[in-house]
Amino acid sequence: MIIGNDYGHGGDVYRNKICCDFSANVNPYGTPEKVKEAIRKAAEKVAAYPDPYCTELRKKLSEHTGAPEKSIVCGNGAAEIIFQFVEALRPVKTLLPVPSFSEYESALRVYGRETELYPLSRENGFVLTEDILGSIDEDTDLLMLCNPNNPTGQPIEGGLLFKIITRCRETGTWLFLDECFVSLCEEGSVSSVLSELREGDRVFLLNAFTKLYGMAGVRLGYGICLEDEILRRMCSIIQPWNVSALAQAAGCAALECGEWTKTTKAKIFEEKKYLLNELETLGVECIPGVANYIMLTGVPGLYEKMLEKGILIRSCANYHGLSEGDCRIAVKTREENEVLVKALKEVLS
Amino acid sequence: MIIGNDYGHGGDVYRNKICCDFSANVNPYGTPEKVKEAIRKAAEKVAAYPDPYCTELRKKLSEHTGAPEKSIVCGNGAAEIIFQFVEALRPVKTLLPVPSFSEYESALRVYGRETELYPLSRENGFVLTEDILGSIDEDTDLLMLCNPNNPTGQPIEGGLLFKIITRCRETGTWLFLDECFVSLCEEGSVSSVLSELREGDRVFLLNAFTKLYGMAGVRLGYGICLEDEILRRMCSIIQPWNVSALAQAAGCAALECGEWTKTTKAKIFEEKKYLLNELETLGVECIPGVANYIMLTGVPGLYEKMLEKGILIRSCANYHGLSEGDCRIAVKTREENEVLVKALKEVLS
Repeated sequence: MIIGNDYGHGGDVYRNKICCDFSANVNPYGTPEKVKEAIRKAAEKVAAYPDPYCTELRKKLSEHTGAPEKSIVCGNGAAEIIFQFVEALRPVKTLLPVPSFSEYESALRVYGRETELYPLSRENGFVLTEDILGSIDEDTDLLMLCNPNNPTGQPIEGGLLFKIITRCRETGTWLFLDECFVSLCEEGSVSSVLSELREGDRVFLLNAFTKLYGMAGVRLGYGICLEDEILRRMCSIIQPWNVSALAQAAGCAALECGEWTKTTKAKIFEEKKYLLNELETLGVECIPGVANYIMLTGVPGLYEKMLEKGILIRSCANYHGLSEGDCRIAVKTREENEVLVKALKEVLS
Repeated sequence: MIIGNDYGHGGDVYRNKICCDFSANVNPYGTPEKVKEAIRKAAEKVAAYPDPYCTELRKKLSEHTGAPEKSIVCGNGAAEIIFQFVEALRPVKTLLPVPSFSEYESALRVYGRETELYPLSRENGFVLTEDILGSIDEDTDLLMLCNPNNPTGQPIEGGLLFKIITRCRETGTWLFLDECFVSLCEEGSVSSVLSELREGDRVFLLNAFTKLYGMAGVRLGYGICLEDEILRRMCSIIQPWNVSALAQAAGCAALECGEWTKTTKAKIFEEKKYLLNELETLGVECIPGVANYIMLTGVPGLYEKMLEKGILIRSCANYHGLSEGDCRIAVKTREENEVLVKALKEVLS
């Protein structure tokens, strides 16, 4: 939790009087009934400590992902795992393409020594290119990537990602690859690199239940890594019961919601088409990306004006390389998207 | 969570085939219905991120404890706060009376430099005495105490605690005082030192919802400190959403369960009398303490023999200064206590 006034993320529906929250990139169709039911059921048994090994959840995650159980670590949300990984590694030099999710830098500020920001070019739509390969050398302890990136939604091209992994193998560089949005992308646009990895690879894949399953309030994330030592170190610096019994139950139930995720994803990308069309009509420039969110560019003051109308969007002004005119909106349900479009029309006219 | 085989606590009902768990010191009357109801209700809204400021919960905790809101920090269980505090302080030299709760040492192993163990004497029933004052000097960055202590249940005498606080003021020593069991003690035996503290005092009070409200599976703890800087540092080294929306809702509801806690506490200490009587009849030596648990001494092999009967008790063999013959049992309901007593009779005859 935070003391003071330092929150710089979307989703703060507690300090803003709003009717619609477009600032958090969570599945707009909410939480599957099966997950809620699992939480309600687990509430009956919360007097007991949670399983410190997350046995059942890791078993199910192993079946779901194909990764061995011993290579899976669960955490109190993906954000905890970011801090835990960086702390366990304590990298001397980290290469960090920006803009990207700000918690990487928050963790590096505490546990990293030197962070080299690698600015992605606006002219190029903030896409990661082969140029990055030249910046990875033997001194690079860690490279932190987000695929697709947040807030731009831009994917890393598959061939390039493979080259990055190969380059990191050569230089002994750790690759932290945030795949939290892979499961909420347009079909066929991005996939996990898990199947490309070999035993011992210094690649850490981050994932979360937050977005796809509408579980941001539950706190549940996981990591996959085929190098055992870092996982052991990660577990040695944390309390044994960091994943609540409610989260473990919710996670197990979520993994049985394959049909639900398919259906809601299809609807989300129908809605994204609708939103992109409307934005084009309105003449709002944007980077569409491949995820369930869209970055709007070149509309200074939009955040404040939308907030006046009770609509919370994500100002991107506090991202490296972005400015006051950049905002991110989540793709939501038709009803909500229509409210957004109507408000945009009024604000921009 | 843990990878490997390092769990050394009670309450592992996941890897033991048991009928009764006496190893975790949680309120045997379970979780108040109001708390379960709050979790069920919160399950409907878990798609949203939790409030990173824990605003409502801290407001209610402020009313409940009398501490100002700004002096309250919430965490993912008390165990997280132990790690977070020690990490924020990074003490060079820590004085640690033992035996005591093992997570202090786990955190010190990661974030402390030098830990001076201060052995409590078995002859004296592991009671903290005035001798400790002579061990606190200007070099002592941190003193970690648990009142009443775990696993002995021994309270720190009020006058001595006051002298310790005064001594720590003189030497500039931080006092970390774990009061997690204060609310689950015999009426009038122990109270919080909060009202003794002054603005700026280097005293950190730890508390949890875990034991009193039967919420171990939810993960919710809090700390109180009248020195602001350490709280700010603590919040800077952690993700913003460490306290789940479910935990925040459960905590708010728990604080409205005053009647329930009174009733269940009365029953617990009736049951404790029953257990102590039975133990005396059986000739089992014990340290009764003032909390909702009892430390049995001098019964080697008891843990294994009870486990054979499906009863999990807490072996204390892995505590400093304790040995294979020391075990801790929680006070439970009459039905369960009778099962325990019956099994003890069989094992000891």
